[in-house]
Amino acid sequence: MTEPKEHVLDWLRDAHAMEQQAEQMLKAQSGRLKHYPQLKARIDQHLEGTLGQQKIVAECIERLGGSTSTVKDLGGKLMAFAHAAGGMTMTDEVVKGAIMSYVFENLEIASYTALIAAAKRCGDLETKAACERILPQEQAMAQWLLEHIPSISTEYLQRSASGQEAKK
Amino acid sequence: MTEPKEHVLDWLRDAHAMEQQAEQMLKAQSGRLKHYPQLKARIDQHLEGTLGQQKIVAECIERLGGSTSTVKDLGGKLMAFAHAAGGMTMTDEVVKGAIMSYVFENLEIASYTALIAAAKRCGDLETKAACERILPQEQAMAQWLLEHIPSISTEYLQRSASGQEAKK
Repeated sequence: MTEPKEHVLDWLRDAHAMEQQAEQMLKAQSGRLKHYPQLKARIDQHLEGTLGQQKIVAECIERLGGSTSTVKDLGGKLMAFAHAAGGMTMTDEVVKGAIMSYVFENLEIASYTALIAAAKRCGDLETKAACERILPQEQAMAQWLLEHIPSISTEYLQRSASGQEAKK
Repeated sequence: MTEPKEHVLDWLRDAHAMEQQAEQMLKAQSGRLKHYPQLKARIDQHLEGTLGQQKIVAECIERLGGSTSTVKDLGGKLMAFAHAAGGMTMTDEVVKGAIMSYVFENLEIASYTALIAAAKRCGDLETKAACERILPQEQAMAQWLLEHIPSISTEYLQRSASGQEAKK
Protein backbone atom coordinates (compact mmCIF):
# COMPACT_ATOMS: atom_id res chain seq x y z
CA MET A 1 0.00 0.00 0.00
CA THR A 2 1.30 3.40 -0.93
CA GLU A 3 -0.38 6.61 0.13
CA PRO A 4 -1.40 8.94 -2.73
CA LYS A 5 0.70 11.71 -1.16
CA GLU A 6 3.85 9.65 -1.62
CA HIS A 7 3.10 9.28 -5.33
CA VAL A 8 2.51 13.02 -5.62
CA LEU A 9 5.92 13.66 -4.08
CA ASP A 10 7.53 11.14 -6.47
CA TRP A 11 5.87 12.76 -9.48
CA LEU A 12 6.93 16.21 -8.34
CA ARG A 13 10.52 14.93 -8.20
CA ASP A 14 10.12 13.58 -11.73
CA ALA A 15 8.75 16.97 -12.79
CA HIS A 16 11.73 18.74 -11.23
CA ALA A 17 14.18 16.47 -13.08
CA MET A 18 12.17 17.11 -16.24
CA GLU A 19 12.42 20.89 -15.89
CA GLN A 20 16.17 20.60 -15.33
CA GLN A 21 16.47 18.60 -18.53
CA ALA A 22 14.26 21.11 -20.33
CA GLU A 23 16.68 23.84 -19.26
CA GLN A 24 19.66 21.90 -20.65
CA MET A 25 17.91 21.14 -23.91
CA LEU A 26 16.67 24.69 -24.50
CA LYS A 27 20.10 26.18 -23.68
CA ALA A 28 21.84 23.80 -26.07
CA GLN A 29 19.35 24.51 -28.85
CA SER A 30 19.43 28.27 -28.40
CA GLY A 31 23.23 28.22 -28.32
CA ARG A 32 23.44 26.45 -31.69
CA LEU A 33 20.75 28.31 -33.66
CA LYS A 34 22.10 30.93 -36.11
CA HIS A 35 19.66 31.48 -38.96
CA TYR A 36 16.27 31.07 -37.27
CA PRO A 37 15.99 34.16 -35.02
CA GLN A 38 12.27 33.80 -34.33
CA LEU A 39 12.68 30.24 -33.07
CA LYS A 40 15.72 31.21 -31.00
CA ALA A 41 13.80 34.10 -29.40
CA ARG A 42 10.87 31.85 -28.48
CA ILE A 43 13.23 29.25 -26.99
CA ASP A 44 14.98 31.95 -24.93
CA GLN A 45 11.63 33.21 -23.69
CA HIS A 46 10.59 29.72 -22.65
CA LEU A 47 13.97 29.13 -20.99
CA GLU A 48 13.18 31.96 -18.57
CA GLY A 49 9.77 30.42 -17.89
CA THR A 50 11.42 27.05 -17.28
CA LEU A 51 13.63 28.47 -14.53
CA GLY A 52 10.52 29.87 -12.83
CA GLN A 53 8.81 26.49 -13.15
CA GLN A 54 11.75 24.73 -11.51
CA LYS A 55 11.37 27.04 -8.52
CA ILE A 56 7.61 26.46 -8.25
CA VAL A 57 8.07 22.67 -8.35
CA ALA A 58 10.95 22.78 -5.85
CA GLU A 59 8.77 24.77 -3.44
CA CYS A 60 6.05 22.10 -3.66
CA ILE A 61 8.59 19.36 -2.94
CA GLU A 62 9.98 21.21 0.06
CA ARG A 63 6.52 21.98 1.43
CA LEU A 64 5.77 18.22 1.33
CA GLY A 65 9.00 17.50 3.19
CA GLY A 66 10.89 16.08 0.21
CA SER A 67 14.17 16.95 -1.42
CA THR A 68 14.98 17.79 -5.03
CA SER A 69 18.31 16.01 -4.79
CA THR A 70 16.83 12.54 -5.28
CA VAL A 71 16.30 11.81 -8.95
CA LYS A 72 13.53 9.31 -9.60
CA ASP A 73 13.33 6.59 -12.27
CA LEU A 74 12.28 8.90 -15.02
CA GLY A 75 15.34 11.11 -14.54
CA GLY A 76 17.82 8.95 -16.39
CA LYS A 77 15.56 8.33 -19.35
CA LEU A 78 14.72 12.01 -19.66
CA MET A 79 18.35 12.91 -19.45
CA ALA A 80 19.22 10.70 -22.40
CA PHE A 81 16.26 11.98 -24.38
CA ALA A 82 16.90 15.66 -23.75
CA HIS A 83 20.61 15.22 -24.33
CA ALA A 84 19.91 13.64 -27.70
CA ALA A 85 17.38 16.35 -28.53
CA GLY A 86 19.66 19.21 -27.47
CA GLY A 87 22.85 17.86 -29.01
CA MET A 88 21.52 16.84 -32.40
CA THR A 89 23.95 17.80 -35.10
CA MET A 90 22.29 16.01 -37.98
CA THR A 91 21.82 17.78 -41.29
CA ASP A 92 18.25 18.79 -40.50
CA GLU A 93 18.78 19.61 -36.83
CA VAL A 94 16.61 22.75 -36.83
CA VAL A 95 13.57 20.75 -37.94
CA LYS A 96 14.27 17.76 -35.67
CA GLY A 97 15.07 20.15 -32.81
CA ALA A 98 11.73 21.93 -33.18
CA ILE A 99 9.97 18.55 -33.30
CA MET A 100 11.82 17.32 -30.20
CA SER A 101 11.09 20.53 -28.29
CA TYR A 102 7.42 20.09 -29.14
CA VAL A 103 7.60 16.48 -27.94
CA PHE A 104 9.28 17.53 -24.70
CA GLU A 105 6.61 20.19 -24.08
CA ASN A 106 4.00 17.49 -24.44
CA LEU A 107 5.83 15.34 -21.92
CA GLU A 108 5.52 18.27 -19.54
CA ILE A 109 1.84 18.79 -20.40
CA ALA A 110 1.01 15.13 -19.72
CA SER A 111 3.08 15.06 -16.51
CA TYR A 112 1.42 18.15 -15.05
CA THR A 113 -1.99 16.84 -16.12
CA ALA A 114 -1.36 13.65 -14.10
CA LEU A 115 -0.01 15.69 -11.17
CA ILE A 116 -3.03 18.00 -11.09
CA ALA A 117 -5.40 14.99 -10.90
CA ALA A 118 -3.26 13.32 -8.22
CA ALA A 119 -2.89 16.45 -6.11
CA LYS A 120 -6.64 17.04 -6.32
CA ARG A 121 -7.26 13.44 -5.20
CA CYS A 122 -5.06 14.07 -2.13
CA GLY A 123 -6.67 17.40 -1.32
CA ASP A 124 -3.27 19.03 -1.85
CA LEU A 125 -4.66 22.21 -3.33
CA GLU A 126 -1.35 24.08 -3.20
CA THR A 127 0.38 21.55 -5.45
CA LYS A 128 -2.67 21.51 -7.72
CA ALA A 129 -2.61 25.32 -8.01
CA ALA A 130 1.16 25.36 -8.62
CA CYS A 131 0.86 22.84 -11.48
CA GLU A 132 -2.09 24.74 -12.90
CA ARG A 133 0.11 27.84 -13.06
CA ILE A 134 2.80 25.97 -15.01
CA LEU A 135 0.58 24.01 -17.43
CA PRO A 136 -0.59 26.97 -19.60
CA GLN A 137 3.06 28.00 -20.18
CA GLU A 138 3.85 24.53 -21.53
CA GLN A 139 0.69 24.52 -23.65
CA ALA A 140 1.57 27.93 -25.12
CA MET A 141 5.09 26.77 -26.07
CA ALA A 142 3.78 23.51 -27.57
CA GLN A 143 1.17 25.42 -29.58
CA TRP A 144 3.76 27.93 -30.85
CA LEU A 145 6.10 25.16 -31.95
CA LEU A 146 3.39 23.18 -33.74
CA GLU A 147 2.21 26.31 -35.55
CA HIS A 148 5.76 27.14 -36.63
CA ILE A 149 6.99 23.66 -37.61
CA PRO A 150 5.60 24.11 -41.17
CA SER A 151 7.39 27.44 -41.75
CA ILE A 152 10.61 26.22 -40.09
CA SER A 153 10.52 23.13 -42.34
CA THR A 154 9.87 25.15 -45.48
CA GLU A 155 12.60 27.66 -44.66
CA TYR A 156 15.01 24.81 -43.98
CA LEU A 157 14.21 23.25 -47.38
CA GLN A 158 14.69 26.59 -49.12
CA ARG A 159 18.05 27.29 -47.48
CA SER A 160 19.21 23.73 -48.11
CA ALA A 161 18.19 23.87 -51.79
CA SER A 162 20.03 27.16 -52.35
CA GLY A 163 23.26 25.93 -50.77
CA GLN A 164 23.06 28.18 -47.69
CA GLU A 165 23.78 26.79 -44.23
CA ALA A 166 20.38 25.41 -43.35
CA LYS A 167 20.61 23.15 -40.36
CA LYS A 168 20.95 25.66 -37.50
CA MET B 1 22.74 21.75 -51.98
CA THR B 2 20.05 19.21 -51.29
CA GLU B 3 16.81 19.03 -53.24
CA PRO B 4 13.63 19.30 -51.14
CA LYS B 5 12.48 15.95 -52.55
CA GLU B 6 15.46 14.21 -50.98
CA HIS B 7 14.54 15.61 -47.58
CA VAL B 8 10.94 14.45 -48.03
CA LEU B 9 12.19 10.94 -48.73
CA ASP B 10 14.46 11.07 -45.64
CA TRP B 11 11.60 12.24 -43.46
CA LEU B 12 9.31 9.54 -44.81
CA ARG B 13 11.95 6.97 -43.85
CA ASP B 14 12.08 8.49 -40.35
CA ALA B 15 8.28 8.29 -40.22
CA HIS B 16 8.35 4.64 -41.22
CA ALA B 17 10.89 3.83 -38.48
CA MET B 18 8.70 5.80 -36.07
CA GLU B 19 5.59 3.77 -36.96
CA GLN B 20 7.54 0.54 -36.50
CA GLN B 21 8.61 1.69 -33.04
CA ALA B 22 5.04 2.75 -32.27
CA GLU B 23 3.93 -0.79 -33.12
CA GLN B 24 6.51 -2.29 -30.74
CA MET B 25 5.63 0.10 -27.94
CA LEU B 26 1.87 -0.36 -28.25
CA LYS B 27 2.20 -4.16 -28.41
CA ALA B 28 4.40 -4.22 -25.29
CA GLN B 29 2.03 -1.93 -23.39
CA SER B 30 -1.10 -3.81 -24.38
CA GLY B 31 0.54 -7.13 -23.48
CA ARG B 32 1.33 -5.96 -19.94
CA LEU B 33 -1.91 -4.17 -19.03
CA LYS B 34 -4.25 -6.15 -16.77
CA HIS B 35 -6.47 -3.84 -14.73
CA TYR B 36 -7.09 -0.97 -17.16
CA PRO B 37 -9.34 -2.50 -19.86
CA GLN B 38 -10.41 0.82 -21.41
CA LEU B 39 -6.79 1.91 -21.94
CA LYS B 40 -5.87 -1.51 -23.30
CA ALA B 41 -8.79 -1.42 -25.77
CA ARG B 42 -7.80 2.04 -27.04
CA ILE B 43 -4.17 0.94 -27.45
CA ASP B 44 -5.27 -2.15 -29.41
CA GLN B 45 -7.45 0.00 -31.64
CA HIS B 46 -4.57 2.37 -32.33
CA LEU B 47 -2.25 -0.57 -32.98
CA GLU B 48 -4.43 -1.57 -35.94
CA GLY B 49 -4.33 2.01 -37.20
CA THR B 50 -0.55 2.02 -36.84
CA LEU B 51 -0.19 -1.00 -39.14
CA GLY B 52 -2.27 0.82 -41.75
CA GLN B 53 -0.10 3.92 -41.35
CA GLN B 54 3.08 1.91 -41.90
CA LYS B 55 1.65 0.72 -45.21
CA ILE B 56 0.67 4.22 -46.32
CA VAL B 57 4.14 5.57 -45.52
CA ALA B 58 5.87 2.61 -47.20
CA GLU B 59 3.84 3.23 -50.37
CA CYS B 60 4.98 6.88 -50.42
CA ILE B 61 8.63 5.81 -50.02
CA GLU B 62 8.34 3.26 -52.84
CA ARG B 63 6.59 5.72 -55.14
CA LEU B 64 9.52 8.12 -54.65
CA GLY B 65 11.99 5.33 -55.48
CA GLY B 66 13.25 4.82 -51.94
CA SER B 67 13.44 1.80 -49.70
CA THR B 68 12.13 1.29 -46.18
CA SER B 69 15.12 -0.85 -45.28
CA THR B 70 17.41 2.13 -44.66
CA VAL B 71 16.89 3.50 -41.19
CA LYS B 72 17.79 7.18 -40.86
CA ASP B 73 19.45 9.00 -37.92
CA LEU B 74 16.28 9.29 -35.93
CA GLY B 75 15.74 5.54 -35.95
CA GLY B 76 18.18 4.64 -33.19
CA LYS B 77 17.02 7.38 -30.87
CA LEU B 78 13.39 6.46 -31.37
CA MET B 79 14.14 2.85 -30.77
CA ALA B 80 15.70 3.56 -27.38
CA PHE B 81 12.86 5.87 -26.46
CA ALA B 82 10.06 3.51 -27.46
CA HIS B 83 11.84 0.57 -25.90
CA ALA B 84 12.07 2.45 -22.61
CA ALA B 85 8.44 3.52 -22.89
CA GLY B 86 7.17 0.05 -23.78
CA GLY B 87 9.26 -1.87 -21.27
CA MET B 88 8.75 0.29 -18.23
CA THR B 89 8.26 -1.87 -15.18
CA MET B 90 8.39 0.88 -12.58
CA THR B 91 5.81 0.96 -9.81
CA ASP B 92 3.65 3.49 -11.65
CA GLU B 93 4.07 2.06 -15.15
CA VAL B 94 0.43 2.51 -16.21
CA VAL B 95 0.64 6.26 -15.60
CA LYS B 96 4.11 6.66 -17.11
CA GLY B 97 3.07 4.43 -20.00
CA ALA B 98 0.05 6.59 -20.78
CA ILE B 99 2.24 9.69 -20.58
CA MET B 100 4.87 8.15 -22.89
CA SER B 101 2.23 7.02 -25.40
CA TYR B 102 0.88 10.56 -25.44
CA VAL B 103 4.41 11.89 -25.97
CA PHE B 104 5.00 9.42 -28.82
CA GLU B 105 1.73 10.44 -30.49
CA ASN B 106 2.91 14.02 -30.38
CA LEU B 107 6.19 13.02 -32.00
CA GLU B 108 4.10 11.57 -34.80
CA ILE B 109 1.90 14.68 -34.99
CA ALA B 110 4.94 16.98 -35.28
CA SER B 111 6.66 14.70 -37.81
CA TYR B 112 3.64 14.51 -40.12
CA THR B 113 3.10 18.26 -39.75
CA ALA B 114 6.66 18.85 -41.02
CA LEU B 115 6.18 16.28 -43.80
CA ILE B 116 2.93 17.85 -45.00
CA ALA B 117 4.62 21.27 -45.30
CA ALA B 118 7.65 19.75 -47.04
CA ALA B 119 5.59 17.66 -49.48
CA LYS B 120 3.48 20.71 -50.32
CA ARG B 121 6.65 22.73 -50.96
CA CYS B 122 7.79 20.05 -53.44
CA GLY B 123 4.41 19.80 -55.13
CA ASP B 124 4.26 16.14 -54.04
CA LEU B 125 0.53 16.13 -53.45
CA GLU B 126 0.30 12.36 -53.06
CA THR B 127 2.67 12.35 -50.07
CA LYS B 128 0.87 15.39 -48.67
CA ALA B 129 -2.52 13.63 -48.96
CA ALA B 130 -1.13 10.42 -47.43
CA CYS B 131 0.21 12.27 -44.39
CA GLU B 132 -3.03 14.20 -44.08
CA ARG B 133 -4.87 10.89 -43.85
CA ILE B 134 -2.61 9.71 -41.03
CA LEU B 135 -2.44 12.92 -38.97
CA PRO B 136 -6.06 12.91 -37.64
CA GLN B 137 -5.59 9.34 -36.32
CA GLU B 138 -2.57 10.46 -34.29
CA GLN B 139 -4.40 13.55 -33.07
CA ALA B 140 -7.39 11.45 -31.96
CA MET B 141 -5.16 9.05 -30.00
CA ALA B 142 -3.23 11.93 -28.38
CA GLN B 143 -6.48 13.64 -27.43
CA TRP B 144 -7.93 10.43 -25.96
CA LEU B 145 -4.81 9.82 -23.88
CA LEU B 146 -4.64 13.38 -22.54
CA GLU B 147 -8.33 13.26 -21.61
CA HIS B 148 -7.86 9.94 -19.80
CA ILE B 149 -4.57 10.62 -18.00
CA PRO B 150 -6.43 12.18 -15.03
CA SER B 151 -8.76 9.19 -14.54
CA ILE B 152 -5.93 6.67 -15.12
CA SER B 153 -3.83 8.52 -12.52
CA THR B 154 -6.67 8.64 -9.99
CA GLU B 155 -7.52 4.97 -10.48
CA TYR B 156 -3.85 4.08 -10.07
CA LEU B 157 -3.68 6.02 -6.79
CA GLN B 158 -6.84 4.35 -5.52
CA ARG B 159 -5.63 0.83 -6.35
CA SER B 160 -2.20 1.56 -4.90
CA ALA B 161 -3.67 2.96 -1.66
CA SER B 162 -5.93 -0.08 -1.17
CA GLY B 163 -3.11 -2.59 -1.68
CA GLN B 164 -4.39 -3.92 -5.03
CA GLU B 165 -2.00 -4.46 -7.93
CA ALA B 166 -1.98 -0.98 -9.43
CA LYS B 167 0.85 -0.62 -11.86
CA LYS B 168 -0.50 -2.50 -14.88
